[in-house]
Formats: sequence, C-alpha cells, structure tokens
Amino acid sequence: MSQISEAIRDGAEGFFRTQYGTISKMALLLALVILSIYLFRNTTPQQESSGLGRATSAYITVAAFLLGALCSGVAGYVGMWVSVRANVRVSSAARRSAREALQVAVRAGGFSALVVVGMAVIGIAILYATFYVWLGVDSPGSMKVTDLPLLLVGYGFGASFVALFAQLGGGIYTKAADVGADLVGKVEQGIPEDDPRNPAVIADLVGDNVGDCAARGADLFESIAAEIISAMILGGTMAQRCKIEDPSGFILFPLVVHSFDLVVSSIGILSIRSTRDSSVKAPIEDPMTILQKGYSVTIVLAILTFAGSTRWLLYTEQAPSAWLNFALCGLVGIITAYVFVWITKYYTDYKHEPVRTLALSSSTGHGTNIIAGVSLGLESTALPVLVISISIISAFWLGHTSGLVDETGSPTGGLFGTAVATMGMLSTAAYILTMDMFGPIADNAGGIVEMSQQPESVREITDVLDAVGNTTKATTKGFAIGSAALASFLLFSAYMDEVASFAHESFKQVDIAIPEVFIGGLLGSMLIFLFSAWACAAVGRTAQEVVKEVRRQFIERPGIMDYKEKPDYGRCVAIVASASLREMIKPGALAIVSPIVVGFLFRVLGHYTGHPLLGAKVVAALLMFATVSGILMALFLNTAGGAWDNAKKYIETGALGGKGSDSHKAAVTGDTVGDPFKDTAGPSLHVLIKMLATITLVMAPVFL
Amino acid sequence: MSQISEAIRDGAEGFFRTQYGTISKMALLLALVILSIYLFRNTTPQQESSGLGRATSAYITVAAFLLGALCSGVAGYVGMWVSVRANVRVSSAARRSAREALQVAVRAGGFSALVVVGMAVIGIAILYATFYVWLGVDSPGSMKVTDLPLLLVGYGFGASFVALFAQLGGGIYTKAADVGADLVGKVEQGIPEDDPRNPAVIADLVGDNVGDCAARGADLFESIAAEIISAMILGGTMAQRCKIEDPSGFILFPLVVHSFDLVVSSIGILSIRSTRDSSVKAPIEDPMTILQKGYSVTIVLAILTFAGSTRWLLYTEQAPSAWLNFALCGLVGIITAYVFVWITKYYTDYKHEPVRTLALSSSTGHGTNIIAGVSLGLESTALPVLVISISIISAFWLGHTSGLVDETGSPTGGLFGTAVATMGMLSTAAYILTMDMFGPIADNAGGIVEMSQQPESVREITDVLDAVGNTTKATTKGFAIGSAALASFLLFSAYMDEVASFAHESFKQVDIAIPEVFIGGLLGSMLIFLFSAWACAAVGRTAQEVVKEVRRQFIERPGIMDYKEKPDYGRCVAIVASASLREMIKPGALAIVSPIVVGFLFRVLGHYTGHPLLGAKVVAALLMFATVSGILMALFLNTAGGAWDNAKKYIETGALGGKGSDSHKAAVTGDTVGDPFKDTAGPSLHVLIKMLATITLVMAPVFL
Repeated sequence: MSQISEAIRDGAEGFFRTQYGTISKMALLLALVILSIYLFRNTTPQQESSGLGRATSAYITVAAFLLGALCSGVAGYVGMWVSVRANVRVSSAARRSAREALQVAVRAGGFSALVVVGMAVIGIAILYATFYVWLGVDSPGSMKVTDLPLLLVGYGFGASFVALFAQLGGGIYTKAADVGADLVGKVEQGIPEDDPRNPAVIADLVGDNVGDCAARGADLFESIAAEIISAMILGGTMAQRCKIEDPSGFILFPLVVHSFDLVVSSIGILSIRSTRDSSVKAPIEDPMTILQKGYSVTIVLAILTFAGSTRWLLYTEQAPSAWLNFALCGLVGIITAYVFVWITKYYTDYKHEPVRTLALSSSTGHGTNIIAGVSLGLESTALPVLVISISIISAFWLGHTSGLVDETGSPTGGLFGTAVATMGMLSTAAYILTMDMFGPIADNAGGIVEMSQQPESVREITDVLDAVGNTTKATTKGFAIGSAALASFLLFSAYMDEVASFAHESFKQVDIAIPEVFIGGLLGSMLIFLFSAWACAAVGRTAQEVVKEVRRQFIERPGIMDYKEKPDYGRCVAIVASASLREMIKPGALAIVSPIVVGFLFRVLGHYTGHPLLGAKVVAALLMFATVSGILMALFLNTAGGAWDNAKKYIETGALGGKGSDSHKAAVTGDTVGDPFKDTAGPSLHVLIKMLATITLVMAPVFL
Repeated sequence: MSQISEAIRDGAEGFFRTQYGTISKMALLLALVILSIYLFRNTTPQQESSGLGRATSAYITVAAFLLGALCSGVAGYVGMWVSVRANVRVSSAARRSAREALQVAVRAGGFSALVVVGMAVIGIAILYATFYVWLGVDSPGSMKVTDLPLLLVGYGFGASFVALFAQLGGGIYTKAADVGADLVGKVEQGIPEDDPRNPAVIADLVGDNVGDCAARGADLFESIAAEIISAMILGGTMAQRCKIEDPSGFILFPLVVHSFDLVVSSIGILSIRSTRDSSVKAPIEDPMTILQKGYSVTIVLAILTFAGSTRWLLYTEQAPSAWLNFALCGLVGIITAYVFVWITKYYTDYKHEPVRTLALSSSTGHGTNIIAGVSLGLESTALPVLVISISIISAFWLGHTSGLVDETGSPTGGLFGTAVATMGMLSTAAYILTMDMFGPIADNAGGIVEMSQQPESVREITDVLDAVGNTTKATTKGFAIGSAALASFLLFSAYMDEVASFAHESFKQVDIAIPEVFIGGLLGSMLIFLFSAWACAAVGRTAQEVVKEVRRQFIERPGIMDYKEKPDYGRCVAIVASASLREMIKPGALAIVSPIVVGFLFRVLGHYTGHPLLGAKVVAALLMFATVSGILMALFLNTAGGAWDNAKKYIETGALGGKGSDSHKAAVTGDTVGDPFKDTAGPSLHVLIKMLATITLVMAPVFL
C-alpha cells in the first residue's frame, strides 16, 4: 500500500512543482507588466491628497499581487500535501472500521480547508495592517481608512491568476488521465477501474490530488479573498458616504465573519467523531447523514455568530436597526447556500427524477443519452438563477431599507446588503471545502485499496465513501457558482467605484443601448463559449495522447495483462503532466489577454470618436455578460457532468440491465463526455468569472 | 413513385392542417389578450394629438397581428405545398439528367422563396397604405407619417408568433421521425436510410417538408417582416429628428430594397438553366458551383440596385453625401452575409480542418467524438461574433458620420446605418431562401428514388443534390442568425422609442449596474438555456415514442423485413404528428409568457419601491441578454450539429475505416445528437430572438 501511495505522492508533487514553476514565471512576467502600467498611469485624487506617489502605489499593487499569488500557491500545496498523505491512512483505517475511515478523511480534508480559509484571512489582515501603519492611515494629510481596501485588489488578482492556471492545469490533468485510462482499460481491455495492470492508473490517482484537492483549494481561497476584499471596498465606500464616524467596523466585518467561519467549521468537523469503542464494529451508518449532521451544527453556529458580529460591528447610532437588516441579509446568504446545495443534489443524485430519466434514455442508445444529458444540464440552470435573483433582490432591499443614508438623505446600504449576503453564503466555507476535499481523498483511498488487492469488505467501505464524495463534490460546485455569482456582482461595483476614482468623474451607468457597449457584452459572452471550448478540447487532445501510450504499452509488453510485467506508470504520468501544462496556456491566456485588449482597443476608439470612458464601459459590459453566461455555462457543464456520472452509477446498481448491458455502455459514453464538463471546463469557469472581475479592477488604468 | 409522393403529401398536409389549427386557436386567444390590454392602456401623446382613440389603436394592433399571423401561415403553406409537389418531379427529372433535376429543384425552391419574400413586402405595403389613407395621415390634426410604422409592429409579432410554433412543431416532427427511424432502422435492424421496410420512413420524409420547408419559410418571412418594420420605425424617427421635409423616402426605403430583392434573386434563379440540348448527357458539373454562380450574379445585381435605391430615396439636401454612407452600410451588410456563409462552411464542410479533426476523434470512441463536437460548436461562435461586432460598429459609424444631424446639431444617423446594413444583409434573402428550400426538396426526391427502387445511377444524382442541400441548409442558418443578430439590435431601439413614447418621458438607457436590471439580464440568458433544453428534450421524448412503435411493428409483422408485409406508415405519421404538437406547447409558452410575467412583476415591484419604468428596463435587459445568449447558443447548436452530420458523411466516403467501422458508429452517435441541435433547438432560437423583440414591442403597455 505504501508503495502505491508513494508513487502517487511523487507524481503529484512532481507535477505540482513543474506546474507552479510555470505559473510563477508567468506571474512574475505579469507583475512586471502591472508595474510598468502603474508607473505610467494617472493617480486618483485621493492618492494625490494623501501624498501616495505613483511609484508607491505601483509597488503596493505589485507586492499585493505577488503575495496573493504566493498564498494561493501555498493553499494549493497544502491541499495536495495533505491529501497525498491522508489517502493511505484512510485506506488502512478502512481495514479497521468504516467510521474511522470517514473520520480520518474528514479531519484531513478539514485541516486543508482550515488552512486555506485561514490563509485568506491572515494574508489580507497582514496586508491591511501593514499598509495601515506604513502609510500612516487616518493621520492628517494622509490616506483615509476607507480608501485602504482598494489597495488590496492586487491580492485578489494574484490569487485568482494562480487559481485559474491551477484549475486549468489540474483539471486537464485529472480528466485526461481519467478518460484516457478508461477508454483503453475499461472499454477496450475490459479491466476494472483502478486496476494495477492499467499503465495510466497512477496518473489517474495523481489527477485526483492535483485536479481536485490542489485546484479546489486555490479556487475557494480565491473566492474568499476576492469576496473579503470587495466587501471591504464596499463597506468603506458606504461608510464614507454615510459619514459614519468610525468606519473600521464596516471595513473589518468580512475578516471577522471569516474568522468565525474557522471556529464554527472546526466545531462542525470535530463533531464527526469515531464511535467511542472502535473495537466494536458498529453497523455502517450512512456517511452522508453524518456529514449532513456536521453541516447542520456548523450552520446553526454560523447563524448565531453572524448575527452577533453584525450587532458588534455594524451597529451605528445613525441607523440603530441597520445591523438587524444586515443580519437578515446574512441569513439570506446562508439560506441561498443551502438551497443551492439542495438543487444540485436534486439534479445530480439518482434518488431523484432527473437522473432516473437520464438513465432510462440510455436504453435507446448513446445518442439519446447525450441528448437527454445536455437537456438536463441546460434545464438545471433555471432554478439556481431564480434563487440567485431572489437573493440579490431581497438582500439589496434589506440593505436599502436599513436606514443608512448618505448626505442627501437617499438610502445607500443596498449593495452592502448584497455583500453581507455573500458573506453569509461563504460563512460556512471551511466546512463546505472540507466536504469537497473529502471526496478525492476517499477516491484515492479506494484506488489504493483496489490496487493493493485488499479484501472485498475493505473495498466496500471505501466505495461507500467514494460515492458520498461524488455527491459532496457536486454540491460544492453548486456552492462555488452561487458564491461566484454573488461575489462578482460586488466586484462590478468595486470596478465602477475604481473607474470613477481614476477618471475623476462619476461612473454609475453601463448603458447597453450604446452599440459599442452592447458589443462588449457580446464579446464577453463569446469569451465564455470559447474558453469552455478550448478547455474541453484540451482534455480531448491530452486524453488521446494517453490512449496512444497505454495502447503502446499493452502491445509492447504483452505480459502486463497476466501480471507478469509491470506497466510503466511513470511514462503516463510524465505524458499527462507535460501535455496538460502545455494545454493550460491557451485558454488561460485567452482569459487574461482578451479583457485587456478589448478595453484598450475601445479606449483608443473612444479617444478618436470623442467618446470618453468608452473603454471602461465596454469592459464593464464584457464583465457583466461574461459573468451571466459564465454562471449559466458552469451550471450546465457541472450538472450535466454530475448527472451523467450518477446515471452510470445508477445503472451499475443493477437497474436497466446493470453493468455490461447496452444501457450501461451508453451511460459510460455520457460519463466520459461529462468528465471534462464537470471537472475541467465547469470549475475553471468559476475561477474565470472572478479572475475577470479582479483583472479589470487591477488593469483599470489601461482602459482609461 | 407517385404513390409514395402522395403518401408524403397527405402526411404533410394533414400535419400542416392540425398544426396550424392549433396555432390559429392560440393566435385568436392572444389577439383577445392584446385587445383587452390595448383597450385599457394609456395612449401616447402623438396618438392623442392625432385623435387616434384607444379603441382604434387597439383594433389596429390586433388586426395587424392577425394579418401577420395569417400571412406567415400562408408563407409556410406555400413552402410546404410546393415542396411536396416538386419532390416527385425532381426524382423523375433525375431519371433524365442531373442538370435538369437541379433546375427543377432550384426553380421550385425559388418559387416558394419569391412568394415568401413577396408576401412580406406586399402585406406591409397594404397595411401601410390602408392606414395612410384611412387615418388621413399628414393632413392637419391627424397622425404624422413618421409615427405610422409603429402601428405595424403587430404584424411583425403575428408573424413571429406563428413562426415560433411552426419552427418548434415542425422541428420536433422532423427530427423525432428522423432519429426514431434511424435508431431502429439503421442501428438495430441494419437496413439503409429511406428503406421502404422502415415503418417510420414516410414520417421522416414528411418531416423534411413540414420541418424544413414550411418552418424555414415562416422563419425568413418573419425575419424580413420584422426587419422591414423596425427599419421603417427607425427611418421615421430619424427623419423626424432631422426635420427632413419629405420623410417618406426613409420610411419606404426597406420596402423598395426588398422589392429589388425579388427582381435580382429571380434573375439569379433563372441564371441556373438546363443545358440547351437536354438529350445530351453532359458530365455532371458540381451543383454547388452552379448555385454559387447564381449567388454571385445575385450579389452583384443586389449591390448595384442597393446603391441606386439609396441615391434615389435617401438623398436629402441637408446632407448631400449621406446616401453614399448608407450605400456603404448596405455593402457592409452584404459582405457580412458573405463572410457568415463562408465561416459556416469552414466549420461544417469536411473539406476543412475542423470537421476532419472531429472525424478523427471518432476513432477513439463515442465519448471523444461528442467532446470534440461540443468543443467545435462552442469554438465556432467566436468568428461570427467578431464579424457581427465589426459590422455593427462600422455601420453605426458610417451612419453617424453621414452628415445627418438633429436640431441640436448632433449626429443621429448611427442606428439607421445599422438598419441599412441589415437590409443589405437581407437584400439577397430570396436567393438564400431558394438555396435553403432546395435542400429538403432534393432530400425528399432522394427518398422517393430510394423507396421506389430506381436504378443506382438515378440515386447517385439525387445523392449529390442531397449533399449540396445539406451544405446550403447549414449556410442559410448562419445567414439567419447573422440577420437575427443585426435585426434585434434594431428592434431594441424601436422598443426603447416605443417605451419613451408611452411613458411620456425619455428612455435612453438600460443600466445593468442596477440590481433588478442585471437580474433581468440573468433571467433573459436563462430563458435561452431553458428553451433549448425543452426543445431538445421534446425531440428525445417524441423519438422514443417512434422507436417503440417501429419496434412493435417489426415484432408484430415479421413479414416486413422480407417485403411480404407492408408496414403501417400512417400510424407512425400520426404518432409523430400528435406528439410534436403536444411537445411544441411547453417551450413556446415559455418564450411568450416569461417576458410578460417578468415585465409585469418588476413593474409592480418598481411601483411599490418608487422606481419608475423598472418593468420596462428589466424587460430591455432581458431582451438584450437573451439576444446575446441566443445568438451564441444558436451558433453553437447549428454548427455542432452540421459538423457532426458531415463528419459522419466524411467517414462514409471511406475515411477512417468507412461505413460500418467503429469510427462510423461513433460518428452516427454524434449525428443523432446533432439532429435536434441543428434542426429543432437552433433554428427555433433564431425565431425566439426575434419573437422576443416583437412581443416586448407589442406588450410594452403591460410593463409601464
């Protein structure tokens, strides 16, 4: 067992090193670009009044960017480090009891999750404190505290930059290895999944670690970082408008909420204990129920601490009941998270109608299975969109009617209300991330158990954990999209504030009735389609390389099938690693370059046609349309993929002819198609949405 | 042969009667709704000043709606009537010579196309003239001529309402029959396509007529009608703003352009002649080349007449060179049409890289074929979006710099420039529609030849024509999307003018930074996803009914396979017909109800939160986001479907193992998936986009 685990560890760490080596080179290059842009840009009036020179502001942004990139890298590394060590411990625990295996997996996932969330909070807190002291904030003649959060945007961009490539590279890696291994192993040779005779099996197990653990860690790290920063910016802006005497409560609120997240999620995780007397083999309780119980504990505690924090930090004498409205906003967010998780489960769990219908359509062939899966995925976008719409409107109106008014007496709390709802949604992020990390660890443990040929009873335990992990993975994606949708709405507003502050004029509207602005929107939506296309195609191409290599090994070493020869696992690992690094560049570059190019081109066009701020407006439309299309496309890809996967699992339970039947073959085709949808393109889109929001914030000077 | 042709004719005419029966009941119901809304709505200041009462305006709108619906029905009927009669004539012509068969098919298609375009022009011209005389336009105290076009919007809505259901019902019919026939016939029983033993074969051939001929006729009829009306509205508004003395040139310009379209396209069609001495069997010339030659003739003539019309009608003394700018706008449109056709060909023709790569990916299985096709489709959205963006911007700027200025001296011709570009794009519509109608006629002729067991040489001729028809069908779709994209941009503007005129205040901006407006956009994009889902799912469900019936017949009448028993074609026709009528209701109702519900809800919300015009703004965002997502989704669905179809055809030419190989099986799966994409959901989306634009125009009083 330890031999296999070591091979996985070496593969994962090797890929991580090369991948992050590439990413850090790109990050350094981008840092230079940012530096040169900021050295030549205009300064904002606030900066001028606070004596913050061009050079200082350039160095600050670049430093924040690099720190964000570094922290994101560390977050990814921790996720991967823990999971490659926990997998083997889970498999040995599975030899003793199901409950113990569950506990080990959850604690390991929990550890990574707490580190990831903790790093986001601490990183921002350190940056904030450093700038506060260094720039002498709030002393006469220097910067106001309400302007400070804008300096942190570089951190968010750094985090999302790394997360994008981590998710793309990892996602391509994991699915190319998976699809490649299945196509030759399962389909052509008829050997089971995770069979040690398959030369691509180690690459597949490595993929779970680098694709799911490391990448999802980086993804949620960036979600939280971006959300904290945008909420701080909005809190600061609002506090300034309302002339609140001590605005620090509004600015620091997000950091406090996420500190509490660490506490309440830890309690939730620790509530999952092994039975007292571990020598007694108790009947296996459904692990999903246990995880749900822990989630309920976390949610109840989160509601209490959230309400407490709002009373503590958001109470002002100007609007004595405002904190209550904001507490309700938080509740809206928590409920949204819960409903999102429920909807995802409805569409992807085979206990419910949609997946059963999908499985049924497999009985008329590959074609009808794919048509049904695509329709299911497209249809599944409707409910989440309705939920998001209701949450945004209700949170906005709760904030709007909070009683906070600006100088002219008009209510201003609306956007901050949405921000608080987002924080509410993310207030159990550490627990959700734990459930997510749990999935690949259990999957890996199952792989190790299978490869080391443990008894059937052990395999049964890890199989149950693996199935639960699939569901939690799917629901986390729903959660990630929901929070991305809410967070990007905040980031729009931060972008518009930023543009207004650079342009020295008000920038409040994005009018899509102007042809150029409409075209910006068209280009934004198109960017999402093209990005998804390239991400899926990358998996297809890399998988074909794997297929060729595995076929070659089976032909050149005929002894593999009789266990007489050992397959060359290392070569498959190396092939997938280098191909996925190569393939991640094109979609990644598209995402980074296109908003900059579009913004710059329309800025030039606007300059010659006497249309001020045209570049900034077009980019705003690009951002908004890309966000909307991105949310829908990600929902479609994730849900369709999850549903295909579970339709196959449903048939494997014996329904509609069971394993080996024609229905099963059609369902396997669906599963193969769903793989890059749900684990490469879909999750990369969450990151892309937030990356677009932060890149436009940091690159705003280019468009003006 | 005539027996088969009669069966097809009966099936098609039977379905048409039932389908249009249902549609006309719904249209009457909707007419009552419109009537009651208009009887209780506010009147515009223009209407008040012209003495046009509430009741008159209500009757006018309803009458226009019903006339539009009627004309659309007639257009569809003519398309179907001609094609069910031409198919048998093409098959007997094919027994004589290829050239003659081509000529018969093209002339038949051309006849329908000319009737469709002609009806759009004449219908609007009659309405316009009637209102002009009846309302005493331009006489003192009555309506101004520039307000007249707004009364015609009901006509456009009627046309698009019928087109939506015609396309949905026909699209579901044709693809359910096709997929169902193939799944049992080709895949399970291994008999060739269009084999007389297949009980669903007549239903499949009927489908070509009702799905392709009738529906595409209604689709393009509606495109042209909507585009003429919106261009008339814009021309009128602009002429009024610029205080042009005789505005009728600007208003009547679109009608003149499309009258010329009839002439130049007729010449193009007639240029395709049979060789003089038809008794000499000349070597078969590539029919595509012949059609292209005709297209070139049409384009050259269109450019000339277009330039002439701009000089004749758009010359004003205020801006003597404006007509030249507008002529260039028309050229932009014609070039856009040409480039769109080229891009579609690049992505769907197997002479080019993309389809070859797709075919290659079939060699690694069903899964990789689907992944590659989806990526290809998603990627294919990029170039058309870039082309549309460039055309909109350049036409807008050509119009803007035309020298036409309003009272305050600011340029106003921009939007009219885009309108002229759209007219340019549609200025060869009749020829394009001819090429499109040609496809299903040739396809049907092939079916009749196969079923009546004609010699191989005859089948070869119809096969070549069928293949060409596939390509022209795909390119027409590209053309239809391009024109829908341009036309809907005009319809936005018309909508905003309409709202401003009802609300008695300026309505110039759709600011997506307002949460409710942003949500409107989110809902609009979601509508597209949900609509596509339901359209695809409808085909899947109906196809499963066909599969069951065909399987039943093969079991209950074992003599069918040995030609001893005749299959019951009629039952399949009846099953498909009733199922597709049932299935068309849900997506159709979604498209019609949702903008009205969203607009009304937000109007109420806006009323209670003191936010005037909220409903109208939210609907505007819904419309714009739906248009953008709809264009992208339609491009994706059409191109992916076309590419899968041709990848299969490429393999059938003998590449990658040829017919019967594993690659071919994978390619057939792709083709099956692509069928509802390219012939049901995709084309329905074109219609949906324009229907949304016209429904919001007509229903504007509900949102205010």
